[in-house]
Amino acid sequence: MKKVHVAIMGIGTVGGGTYEILTKNHDFMLKNHGIDFCVKKVLDKNLERIASFGIPENAVASSADEIANDEDISIVIETMGGVEPAKSFIEKMLLAGKSVVTANKELISKHWPSLEATAKKGGAGLYFEASCVGGVPIIRALEESLQANHVNSLVGIINGTTNYILSKMTEEGMSYADALKEAQQLGYAEFNPTADVEGFDASYKLSILSSLAFHTCIPGTKVYREGITNVTKADIKAGKELGYVIKLLAIGKRHGNDVEVRVHPTFVPQSHPLAGVSGSFNAVFVNGDFVDDLMFYGRGAGSRPTGSAIVSDVVYAAKRTSPLYSDFENNGEVSPEINISTDFTSKYYLSASVKDAPGVLASLATVFAKNNVSIETVLQRGGVGGAVVCFLTHPAKESDIRKSIAEIEELDDENKVVSFIRVLS
Amino acid sequence: MKKVHVAIMGIGTVGGGTYEILTKNHDFMLKNHGIDFCVKKVLDKNLERIASFGIPENAVASSADEIANDEDISIVIETMGGVEPAKSFIEKMLLAGKSVVTANKELISKHWPSLEATAKKGGAGLYFEASCVGGVPIIRALEESLQANHVNSLVGIINGTTNYILSKMTEEGMSYADALKEAQQLGYAEFNPTADVEGFDASYKLSILSSLAFHTCIPGTKVYREGITNVTKADIKAGKELGYVIKLLAIGKRHGNDVEVRVHPTFVPQSHPLAGVSGSFNAVFVNGDFVDDLMFYGRGAGSRPTGSAIVSDVVYAAKRTSPLYSDFENNGEVSPEINISTDFTSKYYLSASVKDAPGVLASLATVFAKNNVSIETVLQRGGVGGAVVCFLTHPAKESDIRKSIAEIEELDDENKVVSFIRVLS
Repeated sequence: MKKVHVAIMGIGTVGGGTYEILTKNHDFMLKNHGIDFCVKKVLDKNLERIASFGIPENAVASSADEIANDEDISIVIETMGGVEPAKSFIEKMLLAGKSVVTANKELISKHWPSLEATAKKGGAGLYFEASCVGGVPIIRALEESLQANHVNSLVGIINGTTNYILSKMTEEGMSYADALKEAQQLGYAEFNPTADVEGFDASYKLSILSSLAFHTCIPGTKVYREGITNVTKADIKAGKELGYVIKLLAIGKRHGNDVEVRVHPTFVPQSHPLAGVSGSFNAVFVNGDFVDDLMFYGRGAGSRPTGSAIVSDVVYAAKRTSPLYSDFENNGEVSPEINISTDFTSKYYLSASVKDAPGVLASLATVFAKNNVSIETVLQRGGVGGAVVCFLTHPAKESDIRKSIAEIEELDDENKVVSFIRVLS
Repeated sequence: MKKVHVAIMGIGTVGGGTYEILTKNHDFMLKNHGIDFCVKKVLDKNLERIASFGIPENAVASSADEIANDEDISIVIETMGGVEPAKSFIEKMLLAGKSVVTANKELISKHWPSLEATAKKGGAGLYFEASCVGGVPIIRALEESLQANHVNSLVGIINGTTNYILSKMTEEGMSYADALKEAQQLGYAEFNPTADVEGFDASYKLSILSSLAFHTCIPGTKVYREGITNVTKADIKAGKELGYVIKLLAIGKRHGNDVEVRVHPTFVPQSHPLAGVSGSFNAVFVNGDFVDDLMFYGRGAGSRPTGSAIVSDVVYAAKRTSPLYSDFENNGEVSPEINISTDFTSKYYLSASVKDAPGVLASLATVFAKNNVSIETVLQRGGVGGAVVCFLTHPAKESDIRKSIAEIEELDDENKVVSFIRVLS
């Protein structure tokens, strides 16, 4: 039996779930893992919230220093969120030799290299399974179960808020605005939803996951990012007609030394396992050169699933005899041999409102042909004072599609490409 | 950089895939994991097969002792299959202090306790991720990612052969016999298919997975087992009409100290994520008290995915400073506080051919009511000289269902319950 004292910094939703597991499953973990966990200190400026979890007064820390200076505590859980003061607090703990377990994707995505350097300096571990995809153990899988494989791609639904909104729009025909409002009322979206709906949250997670998958630093700023705020009911309807479901996908691919990393709304074929991932569920599809396709599916958020990932990391940290660090040079820079490519190849769906005149389709087709874009399907409908033409292309280069769009809009003042959605193939 | 010499015992399909990864991805693993793998010895009585993989003559071992006595070799891969001589060879290696990585589910299921004891004696590790569900890292997930959770249930499609046969019967309307024949021709089923089609293979895997999930030994002999040889086209058709797909499921459940472990054909609701797992893909659905639902999906067999699991275990073993052993008393006995329950509660589908006479439905309904079985749906069809009545029950006890079946058959000589399939709910 090993007594392990831990501290929790930040006792909001996720911190509360973590405390609940450490207390409710205390005896279970003692019996099965031989670890007697004790939550010795909790730090949060909201004392009422601390009390609401039944945490005794003598466990309330008055400062991060109090935790850093407590020699009993060997593992510190950070569930405050945001960059500061979480970053300074974590650095203090690492330098004091305490391993840190965090759910903070923004912080890890932005400051992993310096935090890992600090961890090494302090001889401490830094674990962050909970930062990506809630309770789904995708980080451990990339680190400890796929070592034999070149990962060719990872494709995931890794943001619960946007998946909830898009599922509502798809299944119940809601508008984006109404679905967002409902998500906010249910606590699935924040009052300021920007981080989720504009894809920042997914880009933080993708930068972490693709760094691990491709064995090089991929800063979040290198991730191409498009949110879901422009997705319309018409797009969803058109997708349905063509056999697709719209999802905010995070996509990482590696071909030799070319890596692409991107977050954007995507048409997913209805037969693809990711198409059925609805509501607050998340999933990551991974392809490796020997293991072929794998999918990891589960709850992407919530206090209990995220708490599960945190406490499993705490058990992992408590059992390790030496810390686990990343297996690539974690210096904040993409390895010199790696080229982050932004000229993706993809199938595309385009919807254009055009002047309804003879020859208009021929003129559009000519533009595509000129730009090496081959068309798979065309749907044309008459509209008020014009027509709507939808195209599904064969795989084409993003740059060629963008050139085609510009040229189509130049052809006639009435021409306007209203939607432009990448298609998973 | 760490030079690690390994040996492979058994160079059939899986051993060959393993050798291929260790050579093809040698430089990749050296760069990313700092390990310089060298396959120093290969043992197989078929020298032609050894040569066919381009393995040099000086790497051919003449006996297991030669490997056990080679002080350079620290990790031995066993891909021979079957119990003997694999067991004796593995024991030799463990006693010589060499960690063993194996894909052998039959051996682990039958002799894990004694092999683990031998491993401890030799100070060696024993790793078997590849024994369950091919390339899917379900064992590592249970051991290293779900430590915070009481696992309530695990439900899986964990045998590729039967899933291929049932998929062919469902999607193409083939008979069992024809589908089996095709599977044999394609190498998905063996000439003697008993181990797969009678559910032995799945019961070995379930015994391993449920032991890890429920933290107690669960010998394969404790697993209730029914194969797919009695599944008919009529069952598949009836399932389709009721919204179900038939799958050979391995089910482990724990309620308090009651554990049930069973392998049998099961109707899976078409909306359940397991319903879409077709062909040679496998998947395991896990529910934990905090993490909620998780699903792990991937290729359940094949030289490359299984090789991926083996080599990832080899990397894991090479990096560990001390071996990982099971976290429960691995003595071959179910813990005394655990009760292995065989009186499951489930929904059931029953199909009976009965005498077509007035009052027959009422008499059957009376039998069910007397035995506490509540009916959800009834379908009745006229047949030649009789009628076929199908029942879908609400959750009921297996013992009550079996009593009902016996009583229905006693009612009239013409009554016969022709199908009896459990339904996942």
